[in-house]
Amino acid sequence: MFDYAFGRDLDRLIRISLDEDLPAHDVTTLALGVGDRPAEAALLAKQACTISGLAVARRVFAIVDPGVSFEGRWRDGMSVPSGTELAVIAGRADSLLAAERTALNLLQRLAGIATATRRLVDAVADLPCIVLDTRKTTPGWRLLEKAAVRDGGGVNHRFSLSDGVLIKDNHVRLAGGVRAAVTAVRSRTLPGTRIEVEAGTLAEVAAAIEAGADVVLLDNADPALARQAVQLTAGRAILELSGGITAANARAMAESGADCLSSGALTHSAPAIDISLEFR
Amino acid sequence: MFDYAFGRDLDRLIRISLDEDLPAHDVTTLALGVGDRPAEAALLAKQACTISGLAVARRVFAIVDPGVSFEGRWRDGMSVPSGTELAVIAGRADSLLAAERTALNLLQRLAGIATATRRLVDAVADLPCIVLDTRKTTPGWRLLEKAAVRDGGGVNHRFSLSDGVLIKDNHVRLAGGVRAAVTAVRSRTLPGTRIEVEAGTLAEVAAAIEAGADVVLLDNADPALARQAVQLTAGRAILELSGGITAANARAMAESGADCLSSGALTHSAPAIDISLEFR
Amino acid sequence: MFDYAFGRDLDRLIRISLDEDLPAHDVTTLALGVGDRPAEAALLAKQACTISGLAVARRVFAIVDPGVSFEGRWRDGMSVPSGTELAVIAGRADSLLAAERTALNLLQRLAGIATATRRLVDAVADLPCIVLDTRKTTPGWRLLEKAAVRDGGGVNHRFSLSDGVLIKDNHVRLAGGVRAAVTAVRSRTLPGTRIEVEAGTLAEVAAAIEAGADVVLLDNADPALARQAVQLTAGRAILELSGGITAANARAMAESGADCLSSGALTHSAPAIDISLEFR
Amino acid sequence: MFDYAFGRDLDRLIRISLDEDLPAHDVTTLALGVGDRPAEAALLAKQACTISGLAVARRVFAIVDPGVSFEGRWRDGMSVPSGTELAVIAGRADSLLAAERTALNLLQRLAGIATATRRLVDAVADLPCIVLDTRKTTPGWRLLEKAAVRDGGGVNHRFSLSDGVLIKDNHVRLAGGVRAAVTAVRSRTLPGTRIEVEAGTLAEVAAAIEAGADVVLLDNADPALARQAVQLTAGRAILELSGGITAANARAMAESGADCLSSGALTHSAPAIDISLEFR
Amino acid sequence: MFDYAFGRDLDRLIRISLDEDLPAHDVTTLALGVGDRPAEAALLAKQACTISGLAVARRVFAIVDPGVSFEGRWRDGMSVPSGTELAVIAGRADSLLAAERTALNLLQRLAGIATATRRLVDAVADLPCIVLDTRKTTPGWRLLEKAAVRDGGGVNHRFSLSDGVLIKDNHVRLAGGVRAAVTAVRSRTLPGTRIEVEAGTLAEVAAAIEAGADVVLLDNADPALARQAVQLTAGRAILELSGGITAANARAMAESGADCLSSGALTHSAPAIDISLEFR
Amino acid sequence: MFDYAFGRDLDRLIRISLDEDLPAHDVTTLALGVGDRPAEAALLAKQACTISGLAVARRVFAIVDPGVSFEGRWRDGMSVPSGTELAVIAGRADSLLAAERTALNLLQRLAGIATATRRLVDAVADLPCIVLDTRKTTPGWRLLEKAAVRDGGGVNHRFSLSDGVLIKDNHVRLAGGVRAAVTAVRSRTLPGTRIEVEAGTLAEVAAAIEAGADVVLLDNADPALARQAVQLTAGRAILELSGGITAANARAMAESGADCLSSGALTHSAPAIDISLEFR
Repeated sequence: MFDYAFGRDLDRLIRISLDEDLPAHDVTTLALGVGDRPAEAALLAKQACTISGLAVARRVFAIVDPGVSFEGRWRDGMSVPSGTELAVIAGRADSLLAAERTALNLLQRLAGIATATRRLVDAVADLPCIVLDTRKTTPGWRLLEKAAVRDGGGVNHRFSLSDGVLIKDNHVRLAGGVRAAVTAVRSRTLPGTRIEVEAGTLAEVAAAIEAGADVVLLDNADPALARQAVQLTAGRAILELSGGITAANARAMAESGADCLSSGALTHSAPAIDISLEFR
Repeated sequence: MFDYAFGRDLDRLIRISLDEDLPAHDVTTLALGVGDRPAEAALLAKQACTISGLAVARRVFAIVDPGVSFEGRWRDGMSVPSGTELAVIAGRADSLLAAERTALNLLQRLAGIATATRRLVDAVADLPCIVLDTRKTTPGWRLLEKAAVRDGGGVNHRFSLSDGVLIKDNHVRLAGGVRAAVTAVRSRTLPGTRIEVEAGTLAEVAAAIEAGADVVLLDNADPALARQAVQLTAGRAILELSGGITAANARAMAESGADCLSSGALTHSAPAIDISLEFR
Repeated sequence: MFDYAFGRDLDRLIRISLDEDLPAHDVTTLALGVGDRPAEAALLAKQACTISGLAVARRVFAIVDPGVSFEGRWRDGMSVPSGTELAVIAGRADSLLAAERTALNLLQRLAGIATATRRLVDAVADLPCIVLDTRKTTPGWRLLEKAAVRDGGGVNHRFSLSDGVLIKDNHVRLAGGVRAAVTAVRSRTLPGTRIEVEAGTLAEVAAAIEAGADVVLLDNADPALARQAVQLTAGRAILELSGGITAANARAMAESGADCLSSGALTHSAPAIDISLEFR
Repeated sequence: MFDYAFGRDLDRLIRISLDEDLPAHDVTTLALGVGDRPAEAALLAKQACTISGLAVARRVFAIVDPGVSFEGRWRDGMSVPSGTELAVIAGRADSLLAAERTALNLLQRLAGIATATRRLVDAVADLPCIVLDTRKTTPGWRLLEKAAVRDGGGVNHRFSLSDGVLIKDNHVRLAGGVRAAVTAVRSRTLPGTRIEVEAGTLAEVAAAIEAGADVVLLDNADPALARQAVQLTAGRAILELSGGITAANARAMAESGADCLSSGALTHSAPAIDISLEFR
Repeated sequence: MFDYAFGRDLDRLIRISLDEDLPAHDVTTLALGVGDRPAEAALLAKQACTISGLAVARRVFAIVDPGVSFEGRWRDGMSVPSGTELAVIAGRADSLLAAERTALNLLQRLAGIATATRRLVDAVADLPCIVLDTRKTTPGWRLLEKAAVRDGGGVNHRFSLSDGVLIKDNHVRLAGGVRAAVTAVRSRTLPGTRIEVEAGTLAEVAAAIEAGADVVLLDNADPALARQAVQLTAGRAILELSGGITAANARAMAESGADCLSSGALTHSAPAIDISLEFR
Repeated sequence: MFDYAFGRDLDRLIRISLDEDLPAHDVTTLALGVGDRPAEAALLAKQACTISGLAVARRVFAIVDPGVSFEGRWRDGMSVPSGTELAVIAGRADSLLAAERTALNLLQRLAGIATATRRLVDAVADLPCIVLDTRKTTPGWRLLEKAAVRDGGGVNHRFSLSDGVLIKDNHVRLAGGVRAAVTAVRSRTLPGTRIEVEAGTLAEVAAAIEAGADVVLLDNADPALARQAVQLTAGRAILELSGGITAANARAMAESGADCLSSGALTHSAPAIDISLEFR
């Protein structure tokens, strides 16, 4: 997929990162006086991981210095063992040193998200249940982190408040009930709009379905409650489980028969993968 | 400290986050038709944590709608138990809903960093050893994350490649040895410039000190090696330990007598704190 | 609805407009030497119209000079006769003169769109058929023009390529048929996603419905074909008519029983309303 | 003419338009999964028109994807019959689909302006009278729309409040009379500055000339009044007619002997030309 | 004069300057730990000068901290002796220290320009000759430096390549002679456009006048040649002298009877005035 | 040194300058109608100077028109006699004319700074004393002007308030004495941070050294006082002299034995070098 929006957001993030890291010069390298020496370095994964952000790292070097070559050895979405050389980079020493930290800071985080997603997806791989992300992304990184989720085998939930209706408990309270909320939203949106409603109990699941929700988001359920919700729903709506989904409990949750599991931790708490730039 | 730079970077990050989350309208709330209702909500910490980002969250609501009131109950840097109400926020329902996710995404991450830092700092509190951060920060967030480290009791290492000399192994290799590197840097920087040199072995520690380093950064040491490095240094340079510092091993590392521990995980892998916005 | 996104896009457009109109000074007023005189002026509609953009005009004056007062007499969405004073504005003469052209250029266009929409909406007012806009908006103005459509009683179709699926003939051709296209899209989007499919003939309408389209967009139909499409659809999908909808033919089209009429001319060819700023 | 300013303003407008249309991905094409297929399409004029904006459309495709080829068949300023292929475009299908709407929205409007201008210019082609535009342009589009006027054979009036003196009735009132206004402006501007004065009556025309105006702008005249103004002026000033100029009355107005006709409708109300992108 | 454009350009320059000076914190003041102490300071002119930029300095403090008070004692355009307190500023110590350098860097340069202009203007004060600036301004500062010239009693020449015609020797060469150049420009510009032509010799002055120039710019003349040019021109065009104008030779040049003297050195080489911020 | 930050700041400054100079078209060249003629021109130094900004000028032409060729004959940092051709530039006439003023405005100023620095550096060339700049740079130009200082043989003092500690008299007053100030700063900064303290008298020099300053900045000394300060310091700190350093007194100051001379006039008051673009 050619992707103008991804490229635009990526370039903005890279430039901000370089602005932070290089308000003026790299004083160490400038003072050393050997910045124009040719250098070669490898991006080395020091942990097993699912790759994401390799294309992102490539762009960092290109922005810092179009003369740097970047030969990717693998592709985003692949899972590799510890010790894998992800890419080989060659160019002026000072260009490599100026780009290093920004490239790694991006890459380590995105690989962390893809790896965490892959773990969740693999846990439910043989079940008819998909893994979704949330809007709990890092400000400035939404398109990048959602791409990392796709690289890990996940599916993206909505990208913003503008591209999907999700009626939460706060909305229900404001509207005076779930029926009133769904009715109001139906009357003011494009005919056929997908309406998702959050529920915390079986009663709320039932109310949401009766009000005409297309999708019910059941929050903070355990597997037992999830199974009951699946029975109650009986195919009249899509059922999504959210809240506290981990690699440990994902399978049990998915075995309830729910259609989707969504997890905020994929993007807000996945630990960074240890990746370094090794000069030769 | 009045802080123009922090405010500038914060506003940029908030606006980018709102751009991502609101390319057009909040379609749910707009269609509900009750966005102008007055609402009140509390920021609730659902885990014990050290607070950071409360001032940041306040600014999110102010940018979305200057008419929203934000009454902070605690201050950045304080440690609070689970269940603590951090702030009470009142205003139009649609303004609160539009700002919610951006405020939480910022706050949860910064509190995560402050909490992780506090844990490390407390582990070495009675020793003459300080806890430092690194440049392994989230692109776009450097000033914010470094403030979170201070909120957790840490001290900031350099903010960018422009404000401090750190001669790493790659520089040494380029320069043809640590002595050549230190000499070159001394000759092209302002007299009196602080020079830090990375070392991986005792021999490199010795070479760095002999070359005139003010600070030696010993990477990936264990406590035993750290103790030897302290003895070898004998006060002729400041000694900083880095690499794999955790809450579990920090005390043993600090007991070596080193002056500083620096940790990248504080900023790249601290898990987010669970904080929610609860409407009343 | 409090609306961060609208305000952001509006301010951007106003600043660009002022940049174009005031690269340096207003040379006439500066040379006149009487710019600080107090002045009062009225925004006067010289044609009957449905108002839109009055809040927009207010913002122009506020950006040029926060000291200018702007007293709106009517509100966006109201229909007024020729000769109506829309607002009274008071402040320094030079501020009023600097803002005048930008305010009018915005207001005249938005009122034109609201007026054209109102005409279409009124033509079908007693029928169960709504009037939709399109993405044929003026670059830089999308949120503003879509708000003008709402001010005229219309409903907004999708805001961007990111917030709704519309499978056009080009997509069908790429995918190798409408069934393949719908299947592919279903498999890669969030469960429950609304899928709209463009059709040019009754056969294509039938194929779209059989492929599982939620909405069928019938392009360039006349009332007779529209009636046949309604019969064929028989409530299995929502039916939208598009292409060449005018105030003259809208009623006949809607009487077919279709659910929606969409019109690009509302935003790309509505003539500007004559509005002037009259000093007193 | 190589034109840095035009390119700068164009790129800004294109990027804003793409931001509006692609806050995230083109969800339809992404989900279809065939975006990397090669495609070819033609820009097809579905009405006779004078072309403007072809170079603009070329730039849209280049910004979305530098790998797209764009072979223009005609040039801005040429008049073509309905059915003319304006350009042939080839590249990845998703790139063409992402750029399509932005390119058409720009091109349709600019061709509309050039076509309307050409009609007015042709109506007075054999008379010593030129057709001028105004500052009633679309915010964000001034250089583009003024280029479209030139493509239609018109001449540009001032580009901004900063590059020409035009004393309007409001200025006269503030200054206490036309003589005072012209004197004040002469005294504070570069010697030799061109001064244009607006007039609504023959008396005001006379006063403007006596005050030393270089150009008189007679507003809202009919042909009879225009003829009287020409006689009165007798070559002592340049005479420009404005207000309500249409293709229908332009010739009669120009036959008065006035030097210029200026029309705001050229830029604020010219209907868009129907142009589409047809895939092959 | 209320002046949107000046404020816009000023704010941009201040923010760029603060970005340069405060990529992160003011480390000295932050480490000192007493930044919130109230402080008061005076802007003190340590040389006699004509003030310009006082309103600019006020804006710097307001951007850094809206809580700072700034009490101007004099106004831009006034001439004051050495030792004059220009303003008294009070607020948090850290705010004053953060704004100090940016405010002074702007103020010292603008006062330098106003002072240099005032000297030139005073030298020819009783002669019918005005002092003009040029486009030889500091990139980023044009509106500010041209305002400083007005504060010193000068008159502004054109602000950009877009707001005035000046046919230089290069244009003449390209066009194949001055007559051809003037004719071409007349035929493609708005009727009545002011045309200025550069000349280096009396022959070129004569040719420019015959070609219909409104203004002749005689470059690098001495007083004798200037007098001859005045005689030759005989009021048929405005005569401007440029090149090497100094406070020393300005009077002799003006006594030639020329209408204007223009000087690039006013903006590119005026020495900064010594102004400091003295804390109490 | 490859230098991302310099390129970024340079491009920003060039674009701002072109925005100022070309809000719309170059009206003269556009009206002339011969802008596409090929042209060649030389950058000619009309005074002896040390070159700086040649790479900067090259970038101006590249931004205006990538098709322009720029053949530099010399390099930044070289000293050349009057009459030297610095570069030969070829391309479309209108591109050269559009870029001319911006390129010259940048180049003339930077060459002025390098030339002034070179004069100071040469005056002390055989003494162990280096020439430093200050933060008294032109807002928007800091990296460029500091590079010009290096081109003239000078050494850069700190680039911003963020990359070096300098305790000035105001800080001392706020902290309640120099010892308290140094102690506070040591306690809150990275161990080993370079601390510079401003002093106005020998007593203050002594106090600064006793408080542990690494560098003492003695302000406004004459050579006699400077000698006394050197004796007093006796190598315990680095000694920098500042205030009123000129080419005339620099040698006498340096002969005191001080380590550094710093001069603000290098950047705020160096007269521009006369350089012109001569068409052939």
